[in-house]
Amino acid sequence: MNQIDSILEKILEFRDQRDWKQFHTTENLAKSIAIEAGELLEHFQWGDAYDEEALKDEIADVLIYAFLIANSIDADIEKMMLDKVERNKSRFPVELVKGNSGKHLKKHKKTGL
Amino acid sequence: MNQIDSILEKILEFRDQRDWKQFHTTENLAKSIAIEAGELLEHFQWGDAYDEEALKDEIADVLIYAFLIANSIDADIEKMMLDKVERNKSRFPVELVKGNSGKHLKKHKKTGL
Amino acid sequence: MNQIDSILEKILEFRDQRDWKQFHTTENLAKSIAIEAGELLEHFQWGDAYDEEALKDEIADVLIYAFLIANSIDADIEKMMLDKVERNKSRFPVELVKGNSGKHLKKHKKTGL
Amino acid sequence: MNQIDSILEKILEFRDQRDWKQFHTTENLAKSIAIEAGELLEHFQWGDAYDEEALKDEIADVLIYAFLIANSIDADIEKMMLDKVERNKSRFPVELVKGNSGKHLKKHKKTGL
Repeated sequence: MNQIDSILEKILEFRDQRDWKQFHTTENLAKSIAIEAGELLEHFQWGDAYDEEALKDEIADVLIYAFLIANSIDADIEKMMLDKVERNKSRFPVELVKGNSGKHLKKHKKTGL
Repeated sequence: MNQIDSILEKILEFRDQRDWKQFHTTENLAKSIAIEAGELLEHFQWGDAYDEEALKDEIADVLIYAFLIANSIDADIEKMMLDKVERNKSRFPVELVKGNSGKHLKKHKKTGL
Repeated sequence: MNQIDSILEKILEFRDQRDWKQFHTTENLAKSIAIEAGELLEHFQWGDAYDEEALKDEIADVLIYAFLIANSIDADIEKMMLDKVERNKSRFPVELVKGNSGKHLKKHKKTGL
Repeated sequence: MNQIDSILEKILEFRDQRDWKQFHTTENLAKSIAIEAGELLEHFQWGDAYDEEALKDEIADVLIYAFLIANSIDADIEKMMLDKVERNKSRFPVELVKGNSGKHLKKHKKTGL
């Protein structure tokens, strides 16, 4: 079993022991990611003097819910990520964005990342 | 090289070819996760008739930034996730939360996930 | 009619002309606020060189949805805000937080703002 | 003094008594809105059995920070909101969106609300 499937297996085991699959609709997991993203951001609310262990805790929450939502639509996590990196290569050509944030391209394309 | 490091390597290569490390402070990446979480949630704004390919695109963005923020603080992604699953086991004991969302425990502990 | 009710009236008129009340459940409006908050934050993703008119547009979206969600639970907007300011006065006593963000108090109380 | 300015005055008085203006940069306030939006959304994480008083508390937080960010860029709150309602009238013509969420228009325009 590969590394990501092995982590996912432990998360699903945790979920199933608590009979929580019923709560984990794709929509509820999308909300959960936004909620956890807010908690992560809270560490930077008034500056960046964050506590590293507390930060890891929040990043882990985002990742766990992101793995769960991917699983809820049967998406292959590695493929999904590498596909997006490939799309970003054509959306943000090196010669146009090197050393700038590419914000000017997003303005027009408005397609994300 | 393990699977997660291999994905991370491709993300970092994409970043470095564009000289974007300068933009990727831990704080900016935390903001980026919140922004992408909002875009993901937008697919469920008025219901759950989402397009699966578009959803994968947004989940991938969340995951890519989550990998990048973990990397920015030199955190081991697998360890961070499994550590959190372990902490959640003691925070949400099976006998107290089986079949309920555990929301009543969060009210008291207010420690997240 | 007071100022806030007068603004709300124009928002509700806009909504009703489009028959959109059916979409504006309290939950959908909560999601909408999070989505708009993400769009607002996007202007600060890589720094704070924001465009003021674009920013006003996003702040207005947050405010419009916040007025709508308050309306959806029949809450009095002015009262709700002033009540919260009063609660914050006892949560954040001047002698404990003057010149600091009060973050140390939130750690213990974990009650927000 | 109009109603909104009167509420804003009380918020600014609260802020100034604590010498908190230094923390309230436009960017920090944008982050704060996203954080509070996440706390508001948390009440709907696994369903919509929310507590009304707790919800009011979170909506008030969003509104207070939205008033503060508007103030930080010297924006007129009423004007900003009514201007946006006007723009939305042309973005979402009644004949095209009556009874549907207008999502199909957003796909093309990608300009928000």
